[in-house]
Amino acid sequence: MRWPDKILIREVGPRDGLQNEKAILSTDKKIALINDLIEAGVVAIEATSFVHPGTVPQLGDAEKLLEGLTEPGPEVIISALVGNVRGMERALAMTHTHLREVVVVVSASEAHNRANLNRSIDESMEGLDKICRMAAGEINVRGAVATAFGCPYQGKIRFDEVNRVVDGMLNAGIREITLADTAGMGNPRQVYELVTELKGNHPGVTWSLHLHDTRRMGMANTVMGILAGISVLESSVGGLGGCPFIPGATGNIATGETIKLLHEMGIDTGIDLERINRCTRNIRTCLDN
Amino acid sequence: MRWPDKILIREVGPRDGLQNEKAILSTDKKIALINDLIEAGVVAIEATSFVHPGTVPQLGDAEKLLEGLTEPGPEVIISALVGNVRGMERALAMTHTHLREVVVVVSASEAHNRANLNRSIDESMEGLDKICRMAAGEINVRGAVATAFGCPYQGKIRFDEVNRVVDGMLNAGIREITLADTAGMGNPRQVYELVTELKGNHPGVTWSLHLHDTRRMGMANTVMGILAGISVLESSVGGLGGCPFIPGATGNIATGETIKLLHEMGIDTGIDLERINRCTRNIRTCLDN
Repeated sequence: MRWPDKILIREVGPRDGLQNEKAILSTDKKIALINDLIEAGVVAIEATSFVHPGTVPQLGDAEKLLEGLTEPGPEVIISALVGNVRGMERALAMTHTHLREVVVVVSASEAHNRANLNRSIDESMEGLDKICRMAAGEINVRGAVATAFGCPYQGKIRFDEVNRVVDGMLNAGIREITLADTAGMGNPRQVYELVTELKGNHPGVTWSLHLHDTRRMGMANTVMGILAGISVLESSVGGLGGCPFIPGATGNIATGETIKLLHEMGIDTGIDLERINRCTRNIRTCLDN
Repeated sequence: MRWPDKILIREVGPRDGLQNEKAILSTDKKIALINDLIEAGVVAIEATSFVHPGTVPQLGDAEKLLEGLTEPGPEVIISALVGNVRGMERALAMTHTHLREVVVVVSASEAHNRANLNRSIDESMEGLDKICRMAAGEINVRGAVATAFGCPYQGKIRFDEVNRVVDGMLNAGIREITLADTAGMGNPRQVYELVTELKGNHPGVTWSLHLHDTRRMGMANTVMGILAGISVLESSVGGLGGCPFIPGATGNIATGETIKLLHEMGIDTGIDLERINRCTRNIRTCLDN
């Protein structure tokens, strides 16, 4: 049993968390949240999304947010989700800000890809190729495979369905891939087996996990992902978030709960739990008022 | 990574679950619950406790409950907790009923043992020896090590503190030992390491885990216990229960949640999830009224 010394936590609350909250947070409050997270020791933050503001009004202020961000330390990587070529154009227009990375999502499930992105997986892969070519030399691109552990429309997801998307991402030049349990349908054994298989087949790739705690298996899935060798975990402050296109799929694993688990197991995250708990209380107060 | 084909679930709701409920359930309703659990496929049930009725009024009907139990199938093991020699005398007077096994608890923490059982660990171990001699040929005795993963009074529990109690139990002739995370303080790595160490040092012993979900690490601890080779898991229908002597230590891992996790990972329990969910709804309705 090999336990790592360190895991990188990527905070996705400002993006995946807030996009499922009805109360629209002001840009200033979002910036304050991001600053609090950085002060707590978070060095990877998915800050916003370049999707159509009509689709996700909460993140309609992507440009304003990035323009307004206080200078983070050089170790901090601010990323944003990009939905399509139009989104990538918007991201590229922001390279003068602290934006350092974009993430492109393709679903392993044809049905979910159509519901979430309104196109086929093949069309998404074409878009991904184009986005990677646009990014070359300008900004780093990560990939995320949605519904990698199960789809509420389609049910089980086979390994070859995940691998098809992974292969496309690697061919496009991507070297960090997130396996997302978008609807919280994965179980710990499945997480261990999928990560182990992918790591074995594709050495040199950085694997991250994006887990939801929908069925209270989030912490168990986290532990088995770590044992399978993932090096990045995505979590959301206060466990906010989910997927707006999947009913009931609320709840990323919570940052505080995740780092408490890791720290107790002797795994360093560089993040201060007390400060994260304070962030959690602050963001809940903001959203409840 | 070795996953077992089968895990035995021991239902502790009627004892550990109910002892923390303020509403006193009638003996008939307890018997109905036990019958429902058996119909769902549960074959190991900790049904009641021979402690002083003044200490745990909810379980003051131990004799009446055992006398009233419907004949369970021959595969069903009904057990009861025994607090001391007086409790063992009461248990031995019940061997004409379906009672097949008693469990004796000793804490790895001196402070918790005094709070919980009102005596020192040494005194408890003497009592345990006596109980095992009384039981010989009459009834099976299991052991349970309370606060094996942490004590709210004492904090961390060292391996040698657990091992001291384990050694005493083995010397008394006990061959099944439950490691109890009484206050829900354990983490998955600790569970794996303690079980692995004990299994390695004491082959031929059946190890079971009694976990609480106090800090939402219950499912992660379950998975790591299984990977370390435990063969019995104790859970409580609806996640009822806790420890009346530890504030906030409520919540055994829930039977439904646990078997859902196991079944999804391809581990058989012989229990019907739908029927357990029905039991959960029924017991909650009983307790809320």
